[in-house]
Amino acid sequence: MKQLHTIAQCKQWIEAAKASGQTIGFVPTMGYLHEGHLALVNAAKQENDLVIMSIFVNPTQFGPGEDYEVYPRDENRDLALAKKVGVDVVFTPTVDEMYPKETTIQIVPGAQKNVLCGKSRPTHFDGVLQVILKLFNIVTPTTAYFGMKDAQQLAIIETFMEAFNFSTTIRRVPTIREEDGLAKSSRNVHLTEIERLEAPAIYKALQSGQALFRKTKNTAQTIETVRQQIETHTSGKIDYVELLAYPQLTPIDAHTTEVIIATAVHFAHTRLIDNIILQIEDEEHVSNDDE
Amino acid sequence: MKQLHTIAQCKQWIEAAKASGQTIGFVPTMGYLHEGHLALVNAAKQENDLVIMSIFVNPTQFGPGEDYEVYPRDENRDLALAKKVGVDVVFTPTVDEMYPKETTIQIVPGAQKNVLCGKSRPTHFDGVLQVILKLFNIVTPTTAYFGMKDAQQLAIIETFMEAFNFSTTIRRVPTIREEDGLAKSSRNVHLTEIERLEAPAIYKALQSGQALFRKTKNTAQTIETVRQQIETHTSGKIDYVELLAYPQLTPIDAHTTEVIIATAVHFAHTRLIDNIILQIEDEEHVSNDDE
Repeated sequence: MKQLHTIAQCKQWIEAAKASGQTIGFVPTMGYLHEGHLALVNAAKQENDLVIMSIFVNPTQFGPGEDYEVYPRDENRDLALAKKVGVDVVFTPTVDEMYPKETTIQIVPGAQKNVLCGKSRPTHFDGVLQVILKLFNIVTPTTAYFGMKDAQQLAIIETFMEAFNFSTTIRRVPTIREEDGLAKSSRNVHLTEIERLEAPAIYKALQSGQALFRKTKNTAQTIETVRQQIETHTSGKIDYVELLAYPQLTPIDAHTTEVIIATAVHFAHTRLIDNIILQIEDEEHVSNDDE
Repeated sequence: MKQLHTIAQCKQWIEAAKASGQTIGFVPTMGYLHEGHLALVNAAKQENDLVIMSIFVNPTQFGPGEDYEVYPRDENRDLALAKKVGVDVVFTPTVDEMYPKETTIQIVPGAQKNVLCGKSRPTHFDGVLQVILKLFNIVTPTTAYFGMKDAQQLAIIETFMEAFNFSTTIRRVPTIREEDGLAKSSRNVHLTEIERLEAPAIYKALQSGQALFRKTKNTAQTIETVRQQIETHTSGKIDYVELLAYPQLTPIDAHTTEVIIATAVHFAHTRLIDNIILQIEDEEHVSNDDE
């Protein structure tokens, strides 16, 4: 496995790979890899000649007072894991390499950033799109892989790609979970022992919400049920529970075909997010009834 | 010469050209071609295997009440001219092809848009960067060619390219002028006969300003001189006369190496812009003095 530190090295390697007709699968990460990231690599390996992973804790997507400084980092462990799962190239730029000067031009998502995590993290997705455009211009991936746990990020990136005619294909990769259902996250290491025991209740609450919504199609009732279960079974403080059309992130309506039920919960030292995305199959049910 | 109407056709043609190792020179235009555009094509032909020109009057860079509807258009004439100067492909998408739905994500220049034309056209450069990112994702040019008459556009595009790690090289192509000095512009057709006779005074005023600034380095005095000359010799109403560091578009300081003197003037039915960009060669003079 090759490790590249500079943008110039990375562009050169990509250019050579493309000149020989090879497809490039890209897995952008902030490091501290877990099985969720490795699932992205596995998906990338199945569809591409070469897999490049970036490891870069992007400062511009952290707001003031957020956890940029304490975000977990362990490069040696990450490199060993990346090598083990068959990554061909890791790109590990420094902050100075990525941001040599203050950037004056901003990429600003519209209404999609005013819901879910965007409400409490108002500049987060500006920073995400900034680093995504930079990384995509450097790597020019054939296909890029994103986890469905960061569902709002994925929705905004899908919208960005479509609206601006990028040639890169975006693949959604399902959330990887612990045996007890807790979504894998680099931030899980910041949970206390007791919080770790409570945290699986988040996914259980979302599952209850999913079952209820399938039955009732009642948004308010679904949200209330999820909220109550999280409040009952954890000591965390709920940031939000929302139910929206996906990937538009607007209130659901008669045309909605895909729905996200999502939540964020603050624990003592970290904030966890999780979601379930489900298809609305009304028409299918109707046609079944007709048979 | 090949004419392509859809984004898919264009991407396909570019992919084939790149697969055979050919370099792509790109000349984005809003049509109604004049010698300024043809100079861009000539520069592109000298440096690339293939030249693609886009002709697209981009609605998102026109503000409410601006001249989108009356912007001059003549596709047949444009196609004939493009063919004559050796363009290989013209890309002529419709508005629906480029903007099939409302775009929620905006690319917003920073302080660079609060001066010169940006002051009276507050969303113009958002629209320019929007269409540039779309076109660059479609064409993925090796090198792209922009006229120096649209100096603020060029400055913002240069900044965008650098800040977001685009691999495309941007070439500045000098303004082409009529024999009497008037900068060639598609909008010149909207001048009355009398205004057409007055209009060369704009460039003469900028030249006087350049000479004065070289001698005095006095910004305020230079601006005042240009302003007075335009007011004296034309019936136009000055929108602005400004002198700024280029391409930063900030007030000049001890580190400034390149300066723009720029103006916009409203005539009865159209608004003309022009500028002179000059190098500050202080250090050179100092070292000459030392010899």
